[in-house]
Amino acid sequence: MNRFADAALILIDIQKGFDDPYWGERNNRQAEANAARLLAAWRAAGRPVFHVRHASRNPSSPLSPEGPGFAFKDEVAPLPGEPAFVKNVNSGFIGTGLEAALRGAGVERVVIFGLTTPHCVSTTTRMAGNLGFVAFVAADACADFAASSARCWREGEAIALDPETSHRVALAHLHGEFATVLDTATILTEAGQ
Amino acid sequence: MNRFADAALILIDIQKGFDDPYWGERNNRQAEANAARLLAAWRAAGRPVFHVRHASRNPSSPLSPEGPGFAFKDEVAPLPGEPAFVKNVNSGFIGTGLEAALRGAGVERVVIFGLTTPHCVSTTTRMAGNLGFVAFVAADACADFAASSARCWREGEAIALDPETSHRVALAHLHGEFATVLDTATILTEAGQ
Repeated sequence: MNRFADAALILIDIQKGFDDPYWGERNNRQAEANAARLLAAWRAAGRPVFHVRHASRNPSSPLSPEGPGFAFKDEVAPLPGEPAFVKNVNSGFIGTGLEAALRGAGVERVVIFGLTTPHCVSTTTRMAGNLGFVAFVAADACADFAASSARCWREGEAIALDPETSHRVALAHLHGEFATVLDTATILTEAGQ
Repeated sequence: MNRFADAALILIDIQKGFDDPYWGERNNRQAEANAARLLAAWRAAGRPVFHVRHASRNPSSPLSPEGPGFAFKDEVAPLPGEPAFVKNVNSGFIGTGLEAALRGAGVERVVIFGLTTPHCVSTTTRMAGNLGFVAFVAADACADFAASSARCWREGEAIALDPETSHRVALAHLHGEFATVLDTATILTEAGQ
């Protein structure tokens, strides 16, 4: 069975603004290269691709739509005709036309990846699963940063989360509940690329 | 400032079925007692309370609506007149009237807690924040179980997540992005109870 024959890709927030030192230490510097491999394979197979990017409401954010960081990274920039959505919150499904576009294209299966694992990737994946899509996450095409992982909610309580641990736990929380988490090589092999 | 003067409580899946050994080891056995303290305080102040419970589509789940585990735990059971919603997925906002009920009641701030931290509490909190509600999570009125925490997405890759660690990381992922995470005592003190 090829689980990906009719699956759509959803790329989350792979934007130039994530190269800004604002976000701190990151894990998995291969995320963008893996994302580009998936994108190339999907394009070659003529399968649907949906791009999502974040327009921060915080004008000092590297993801402000007024700044250069709002741009998609070159290696995953949409081609003319590929649908692209702008969101202001973490979920790609809130305040966008993404769900309607997926339904309109007859999409039932989605492969989700991008930045950052515990925030926008996780939230979009949770909603994809809960909205009834069969969701997959390409783990090694995601990454996390200190800015999203190193958060302590109680003063004096150390939750010393490095980005790699934060990324892995975020994936474990998704797996088997909202999505099936796989690596890029597995997806590409199974997808016949 | 009392951040809770006009806040609504949202209780997530505090159901008898979570006493079933099916879920494995759990952390924070005080979650239900803390939930009951919050509920009593909100009722005493005449503030709005919304109950959500899970109807599993898996007939062998302890949360199947056909079984005794579907019932709310006694200490947090709704009073007549308190709105209660049934969901089939993790998010309390998908497939329910919860958002419309909150908007209809003029609610802008919500305090969320229940079971389990990384799945239904986290997903409902993420959507609450992304839908524009000012969200708080009562950390010690939530708990996690081995069934939702001990998930390894790659064979041979150990993510040895005990429920307490899983719970804490799930809260760290919410804090400062989707919600403000606090403990019950802080909420009750600030709420003037």
